[in-house]
Amino acid sequence: PTNGFERSAPLYPLPPSSRPNKVLPEDLKTPDHHVERDPRLIRLTGVHPFNVEAPLTDLFDEGFLTTKDLHYVRNHGAVPFVDDSSVLDWEFTIEGMVAHPTTLTLRELIQTYDQVTYPVTLVCAGNRRKEQNVVRKTKGFSWGAAGLSTALWTGVALPDLLARAAPLRGARYVCLEGADPLPNGHYGTSIRLGWATDPARGIMIAHRMNGEPLHPDHGKPVRVVIPGQIGGRSVKWLKRIIVTANPSDNWYHIYDNRVLPTMISPEASADLPDTWKDERYAIYDLNTNSAVCYPAHDERVTVGAETGDKSYKLKGYAYAGGGKRVTRLEVTLDQGRTWMLASISYPEDLYRLAPEGEMLYGGRLDMAWRDTCFCWCFWELDVPLSRLGDASDVMIRAMDDSMMVQPRDMYWSVLGMMNNPWYRVVIHKEGNTLRFEHPTQPALIPGGWMERVKKEGGSLTNGFWGEKRAGEDAEPAGEDP
Amino acid sequence: PTNGFERSAPLYPLPPSSRPNKVLPEDLKTPDHHVERDPRLIRLTGVHPFNVEAPLTDLFDEGFLTTKDLHYVRNHGAVPFVDDSSVLDWEFTIEGMVAHPTTLTLRELIQTYDQVTYPVTLVCAGNRRKEQNVVRKTKGFSWGAAGLSTALWTGVALPDLLARAAPLRGARYVCLEGADPLPNGHYGTSIRLGWATDPARGIMIAHRMNGEPLHPDHGKPVRVVIPGQIGGRSVKWLKRIIVTANPSDNWYHIYDNRVLPTMISPEASADLPDTWKDERYAIYDLNTNSAVCYPAHDERVTVGAETGDKSYKLKGYAYAGGGKRVTRLEVTLDQGRTWMLASISYPEDLYRLAPEGEMLYGGRLDMAWRDTCFCWCFWELDVPLSRLGDASDVMIRAMDDSMMVQPRDMYWSVLGMMNNPWYRVVIHKEGNTLRFEHPTQPALIPGGWMERVKKEGGSLTNGFWGEKRAGEDAEPAGEDP
Repeated sequence: PTNGFERSAPLYPLPPSSRPNKVLPEDLKTPDHHVERDPRLIRLTGVHPFNVEAPLTDLFDEGFLTTKDLHYVRNHGAVPFVDDSSVLDWEFTIEGMVAHPTTLTLRELIQTYDQVTYPVTLVCAGNRRKEQNVVRKTKGFSWGAAGLSTALWTGVALPDLLARAAPLRGARYVCLEGADPLPNGHYGTSIRLGWATDPARGIMIAHRMNGEPLHPDHGKPVRVVIPGQIGGRSVKWLKRIIVTANPSDNWYHIYDNRVLPTMISPEASADLPDTWKDERYAIYDLNTNSAVCYPAHDERVTVGAETGDKSYKLKGYAYAGGGKRVTRLEVTLDQGRTWMLASISYPEDLYRLAPEGEMLYGGRLDMAWRDTCFCWCFWELDVPLSRLGDASDVMIRAMDDSMMVQPRDMYWSVLGMMNNPWYRVVIHKEGNTLRFEHPTQPALIPGGWMERVKKEGGSLTNGFWGEKRAGEDAEPAGEDP
Repeated sequence: PTNGFERSAPLYPLPPSSRPNKVLPEDLKTPDHHVERDPRLIRLTGVHPFNVEAPLTDLFDEGFLTTKDLHYVRNHGAVPFVDDSSVLDWEFTIEGMVAHPTTLTLRELIQTYDQVTYPVTLVCAGNRRKEQNVVRKTKGFSWGAAGLSTALWTGVALPDLLARAAPLRGARYVCLEGADPLPNGHYGTSIRLGWATDPARGIMIAHRMNGEPLHPDHGKPVRVVIPGQIGGRSVKWLKRIIVTANPSDNWYHIYDNRVLPTMISPEASADLPDTWKDERYAIYDLNTNSAVCYPAHDERVTVGAETGDKSYKLKGYAYAGGGKRVTRLEVTLDQGRTWMLASISYPEDLYRLAPEGEMLYGGRLDMAWRDTCFCWCFWELDVPLSRLGDASDVMIRAMDDSMMVQPRDMYWSVLGMMNNPWYRVVIHKEGNTLRFEHPTQPALIPGGWMERVKKEGGSLTNGFWGEKRAGEDAEPAGEDP
């Protein structure tokens, strides 16, 4: 402020402060004994490997950007240890079908290439999988609806790197491989070369998250960030970028992150290698999805004469994939007979308004030139308490700008991925109180209407959320086909 | 064959032969008295303007490529008359926010720019609208399920044209305007500049269709072809390309080709100019859709002891938008409880195998470099006749590579566009015969289970296709809310 000009606060969100974390006692006995973590994170696969989501309300309350404390984590094994002093010497290759194969250090990546910064919402393909597991056990563990998080990522645009490497004619895929040693080799996957070279797709080799060097759980010191696609393609602890004619043959590329046709059972899938290798079933772009965050599970609201005309503000999130946007979010209180339109906010658009030349965390923040959308949005709708009190449930659905709408019913598949039916919150009337019940709770945490309905003998696949319709015969309890 | 080398037939489909058509008697009294047409086309808006689809079976039987005879047509008014001798002198402009505005003749377009040829399926946003009109009258006329057609288009890649014109910073849209004079000005619309400059999106300024100069109904002499998006953006009789900061304010851009939120009634929509102008509701990319073509409506198949183990081959089409692919097509005989996987063929992929340097109709056929998919695909599934005889209906749904699946239920909207619920064919058992009943017939042609169910007092929006469930109260007949 010495020259009389004062820089005003930016119009776009900056991340909330992180907490000082420590290595937690339960991690001391694991290979991750060097990793500091937030105790609020819910472990989905026991103590180790570290697969976690935040409590949904905590995640939502942090706002548009998620701290590293509450950012979901999907680790297949032990977190590679990288000493702070050797971070800049970390090496990775660009190889395969390129005219100029090369090995780069992180130091060279930072010094040689233009740096960019923008927000990206990463989403696990398993987000909301617990719901699938309640219908019928899948091969995956039980994510709730908090398997997504948003951060400001800083790094180098992959198209810039590939332009210098110069892919050869016939190249069609880019394989990505991490440093994590796993039972079936290093974690690896691939994406299409056409996406990797398209600036509007925004694929980045990242080394900062919310302005800080990467946390070990998030790929320290360097990772891939692929906006609009499932988290499983955003390889952490990056070691190799391999340009190829064919998709990756890495075990994790073939046997993970796929939506097999719904009629294939876990048992049958063991014998179908050609089905697993069919790229048509590999997941890349996220599908359109949404969740209710308020009311929270088990939240209670008093109703009655004294609440008069008061309203309750329903709130939640939604997202679409592949750069698409959510164009509407609709709410029903009568199981889909009629719908109300929620309002939607896209904080991501505030970054597009940044002045030309804006720098953030050492990267250029320049989003005005592209239409693609890489982050979650928020929706809300005021509903009179009296109407909530008359309803048996609240359900929501999002539509994206390709005019595809979330399906009413679940598309069950053997890995339990991309679960995106209408998100349903049941309303229980208990005297003067409304109690809200979400579909599930993450991991092995009990609760939710799906487990309850199933225990009561309802069939969750009857097209009515397991509710009995008047005159309907009782259906057998237990696992649905 | 004089040098001993004989060129073998290409691996990719070429169009079937067109018929010699004449000006039809009913067109003589209209402004289109100069246009030769095929009498098989079904007129959807009386005699004039000319809005037509082929009988679904005829369309399907032509195969992957549609002749101009059976290609659907959507005209808002009179077809501009262009004399053959003046075709090459036809002028159009590139103007607005560009460094080098210019006026081009068709002759210059052909002589100055590289020509390309590839197949594109055009689809009207109103495809399958009749189903919406039966549920509740929309503002649109009644397309059946044949509002789509595929042709080999030849022309110039729009990115090439725009690169020479050099859009200025701040430009975000490309407005397109035709020569057809209409009550509310010339037909015009806009698309995003990011799409128009993306080679993988394949947007073309076309002057040949299936190797012939454009037919008057299809834009003679020059039109836009926008693959993967609704036909309404592919402006015919092109006169102006205008690069702008904002979307088109053309009447047809705002009041046509939109999916307003479902709760907005035709009456309410008259008073909502801001809703109409909301770009979130404008349709660009096609949504994922599919139809059954065999069995056809009213087709009869004999069953009984003598048919033994015989199967019936169910067949139809499917498509996705925005360059995406249909990755699976599933068939249910028990209203969604269980599904069977159909096989899918993508004739479009055969063109990707063309040898380097292949020329077709004066344009380069070079599709090996892109992953985007612009055409319909075909599906089929053999089902034992005995199983068909036991079922009350056949329903299908497609899923695309963003893992979005067609919804079970209709998303009704005031313009009745992008209708894509599961396609349902009812099976009637009549003695030894199965008779199949499609949802509707196009235009005012009676027939189909939707009209029948409605007449019988069923509610088409009850979540069960108007069927009564055991114990369900009868619902009032008439228009559903």
